[in-house]
Amino acid sequence: MKTAVSLTLPAWLVDELPGLPTRLDTVEQRMALVNTLAARNHVEGNGGPFAALVADRQTGELVSVGVNVVLSTGLAAAHAEFMALSLAQAELGGWDLGADRDRQLELVVNWRPCVMCYGSTLWSGIRHLVVAGSGPELEQLTGFDEGPMRADWAEQFESRGISVTQGVGREDALAVFAAYGASNALIYNARGGDGVVIPQ
Amino acid sequence: MKTAVSLTLPAWLVDELPGLPTRLDTVEQRMALVNTLAARNHVEGNGGPFAALVADRQTGELVSVGVNVVLSTGLAAAHAEFMALSLAQAELGGWDLGADRDRQLELVVNWRPCVMCYGSTLWSGIRHLVVAGSGPELEQLTGFDEGPMRADWAEQFESRGISVTQGVGREDALAVFAAYGASNALIYNARGGDGVVIPQ
Repeated sequence: MKTAVSLTLPAWLVDELPGLPTRLDTVEQRMALVNTLAARNHVEGNGGPFAALVADRQTGELVSVGVNVVLSTGLAAAHAEFMALSLAQAELGGWDLGADRDRQLELVVNWRPCVMCYGSTLWSGIRHLVVAGSGPELEQLTGFDEGPMRADWAEQFESRGISVTQGVGREDALAVFAAYGASNALIYNARGGDGVVIPQ
Repeated sequence: MKTAVSLTLPAWLVDELPGLPTRLDTVEQRMALVNTLAARNHVEGNGGPFAALVADRQTGELVSVGVNVVLSTGLAAAHAEFMALSLAQAELGGWDLGADRDRQLELVVNWRPCVMCYGSTLWSGIRHLVVAGSGPELEQLTGFDEGPMRADWAEQFESRGISVTQGVGREDALAVFAAYGASNALIYNARGGDGVVIPQ
């Protein structure tokens, strides 16, 4: 049986890293990078049109970037948020991104996380979440199942000390999802091809 | 910035693997192994008292085993279910554990998954979930936050073609959680030490 798995950013993104700014001062700049990476990711064939980054909210310093690499890694959990959060924890040397009380780390992602990444954000120690939007548009435009979320998802973040900012770079995010939906990309909902009816 | 993370089973479990049976015929036998691994895991200091495995429901073949390695990997998402599902995907060579329609793969875990692992189970392609229980006892006995789950969590699994079996090895699981709660183990809820009130 296997005893380890490795999760790696795709080669095109590894090649891009040295050219990225080390700091992005505004949340709009940070989301613009996320939307740009998401748009490229699905065209490169690594996974869905999703990207995320972890940044220092006060200095704008980039700590990590991630994209969805489900297809290139063969691991269903390799979503953009999982990659960005895990790479940030590896960079900073610990499982709690909130361990340094003087630092306000922020996860920026191009839509509300799916139910899995909702949980991984909760457990990561991140202090702030910034999303382009949270409505049904993502599922409608792309065909991805985002899972059963509770109506009070944002309140649940806030109650655990994680602030939520919505609506940053929304139109750009929707354009990426629309481009994905218009392509012939694989929707990897892991249903073995079944046509199942999902209750809302 | 980091470009890859590696998630590895702890050395004690890697050492145990050659001695494990290749097949466990009944679900009770499979859960007994999970409870045994969970009991040892927190004592070894790798993470919480949680273990999981993926098995072929028809043949009893073990495909993967996982334990919580949040502390030993420094990655907050390294829960037992994440490890078992990812190692199974690596073993079988793809992100969809339901891709082989002739095979009925099962995730066995020592309590209802937290909200993150709930999602990772949904996206894994697994066809069956077996848990020791699903009530508030886990949070009460251990102090871990399992996250905001929807009341219809099991129905949501079933609607996606994933069967749910509850109550296998329940008393053994509760005994493991009680032993953990009675120890001085770290509860890694990633709150930076804050005492926050979590709405139910």
